Amino acid sequence: MKNFVFYNPTKLIFGEGTINRIGEEIKKFGLKKVLLHYGGGSIKKNGVYEQVVNSLKENGIEWVEISGVKPNPRLSKVYEGIKIAKENDVEGILAVGGGSVIDSSKAIAGGFYYDGDVWDAYSGKHVINKALPLFTVLTLSATGSEMNGNSVITNEETKQKWATHSEKLYPKVSIIDPVAQFSLPAKQTVNGAVDAISHVMEYYFDGTKNTEIQDQIAEGIIRTVILSTEILLKNPKDYNARANLAWSATLALNGLLKAGSNGGDWSSHALEHSVSALFDIAHGEGLAIIFPAWLEYVKNEYIEKFDRFAKEIFNIDTGNASIDADLGIQALKEWYKRIGQPISLKEIGATEKDIERLVENAVQSSPMGKLKKLEEKEIKEIYNIALKNK
Amino acid sequence: MKNFVFYNPTKLIFGEGTINRIGEEIKKFGLKKVLLHYGGGSIKKNGVYEQVVNSLKENGIEWVEISGVKPNPRLSKVYEGIKIAKENDVEGILAVGGGSVIDSSKAIAGGFYYDGDVWDAYSGKHVINKALPLFTVLTLSATGSEMNGNSVITNEETKQKWATHSEKLYPKVSIIDPVAQFSLPAKQTVNGAVDAISHVMEYYFDGTKNTEIQDQIAEGIIRTVILSTEILLKNPKDYNARANLAWSATLALNGLLKAGSNGGDWSSHALEHSVSALFDIAHGEGLAIIFPAWLEYVKNEYIEKFDRFAKEIFNIDTGNASIDADLGIQALKEWYKRIGQPISLKEIGATEKDIERLVENAVQSSPMGKLKKLEEKEIKEIYNIALKNK
Repeated sequence: MKNFVFYNPTKLIFGEGTINRIGEEIKKFGLKKVLLHYGGGSIKKNGVYEQVVNSLKENGIEWVEISGVKPNPRLSKVYEGIKIAKENDVEGILAVGGGSVIDSSKAIAGGFYYDGDVWDAYSGKHVINKALPLFTVLTLSATGSEMNGNSVITNEETKQKWATHSEKLYPKVSIIDPVAQFSLPAKQTVNGAVDAISHVMEYYFDGTKNTEIQDQIAEGIIRTVILSTEILLKNPKDYNARANLAWSATLALNGLLKAGSNGGDWSSHALEHSVSALFDIAHGEGLAIIFPAWLEYVKNEYIEKFDRFAKEIFNIDTGNASIDADLGIQALKEWYKRIGQPISLKEIGATEKDIERLVENAVQSSPMGKLKKLEEKEIKEIYNIALKNK
Repeated sequence: MKNFVFYNPTKLIFGEGTINRIGEEIKKFGLKKVLLHYGGGSIKKNGVYEQVVNSLKENGIEWVEISGVKPNPRLSKVYEGIKIAKENDVEGILAVGGGSVIDSSKAIAGGFYYDGDVWDAYSGKHVINKALPLFTVLTLSATGSEMNGNSVITNEETKQKWATHSEKLYPKVSIIDPVAQFSLPAKQTVNGAVDAISHVMEYYFDGTKNTEIQDQIAEGIIRTVILSTEILLKNPKDYNARANLAWSATLALNGLLKAGSNGGDWSSHALEHSVSALFDIAHGEGLAIIFPAWLEYVKNEYIEKFDRFAKEIFNIDTGNASIDADLGIQALKEWYKRIGQPISLKEIGATEKDIERLVENAVQSSPMGKLKKLEEKEIKEIYNIALKNK
């Protein structure tokens, strides 16, 4: 087990009927005016918007709105948000939506106090050291952004989908009402589940050894996500399945699994970011394609862990570690297929000629990887596996 | 899954060689003088004291000392600590020790600003709403006090061992260096393990349903504690077993398992507090005696969960839930015996005539219980089971 620091100051309010507490929570911080940031308007159909603004009104909090955040949130929207936030002298940001809305809000919160271009924080030239206080109402469990200091933004001009992290970006308060996710299309639930499982695997397969408690928790989260997703594909309004999936997705990336690890091997996320930057598919779809390819490529670096994964997640135990590792990866792919995910680049329309530009994009983040160091050659091989996966 | 709020602002620094960071962390809060609180002096033998005071000196932090905290920390020592803290105008408290030292420090921290008797916070007459900032260096993993707002103090005069909780009592920073536990007597390691398992079971068996993710994590913690304890009984200096046990014990009572629960059924802890208040045995010994008796008494309230416990923890699966439940409880007792714990009141010298005074003491906290409500009659029956357990 590696040394670590665990610090997560976000107050998480979880459960049915909790959204109407947002105004009171913002009021506790003494704020009078916030920027209300959201996406394409689904929150106006499912009643979340109304609950939120009623709560703001009841607590005497003014707001200005900026909506239209898309999946793979855009830098241009962030600039727009910073401008509106400054013009209106808001004192905080209220994100109502999924990870894209929250990540966009974090960029606005951090950009508000920074004189330079907020993209500097994503390109590694700047560390966010001051930010507007952020509050969130989550409507799609996936990224864990509601309880961490991470943000991923896509620069449309340069086609770069890059991440930043700062302690200043942890939401002050996040509310998760699983009922708000009852009306999600199955595809979004599934994308969220794949994202959560990927976060767990990123730590699980980063090469750290002797982390029994971390492995046990990781396996427990993956098993729960699988179980809950299967229930939700049959009954999207199963409250307990929604709740278990939601809390699992939050725990998958709130620092708990990072404890004792090598920090996670984020190669699959980086390789996926190039896919969704160039093809504009959902992050969860890209991960279902890339992660199994990465697992296939790196498995021999730590075959015992792959053996354990196969046994603990899919009850595969032939007695041969190498065979089990392969069967475990295949079982993961089969499960992704069963829940309707693509598992190859071909399925999203990519061909061999796209590999070069994927590599060119991804190589900007190289060298990458903890379990195995990846540079241009390795990245290309993984994309090639992903192209033809089945 | 029940609604919940998760909020834990403690910064936890974990790993080998981290104790020397304590001075710097205290300095970040702007403190110049602290009360250094510790126990019987083992920290002077194992080098922890020296690491701590060197770090304080290097960071220009003065301190006054009060030592001599015993297991089941005494109210009289708390009074003494409050007096010294006031006389010396300390600005914070640094607890170096196990749960007893930390709990005593919390009582001093909360009592410092309270004009009345700090015992009021334990007897339910007062809620601690202001406290000195608390820092801890943990030397025995067991109670989880390093990352929660709980404190348990024994009033020697009234023979009451009671608890309090406040958000103001969360340590600002806690340091856990597993190496500091290399020199622990096996008995103390074992007591800590039993305490941690008990905390997990308190939530696991509180009657909440549909908490898959919570159950998975709970089972993972118990399995890890069992595995790590067995390794440590053979090799007390196994770093990874120490680390896994330490982090598991912290997670067992830092709010993670409370999420989604009924709040835990703390009957066993309350019944044990009467045992250790009257017999002055270690808390972990008392729990090894009381918990299986409570499980035996309440099992039919939720037999499916007991069935699951037997399967997930001890691989017991006969296909009959009732038989499995019994075998699971017996397996727990057998494991407690194997690691050297008593499992009956008889073994600590109690006889039938002691039952009355145990009941008289415990009944002050009744009615208690979530899975099953306990009053005088039920409490007596559980003590009777505990008397003759084998």
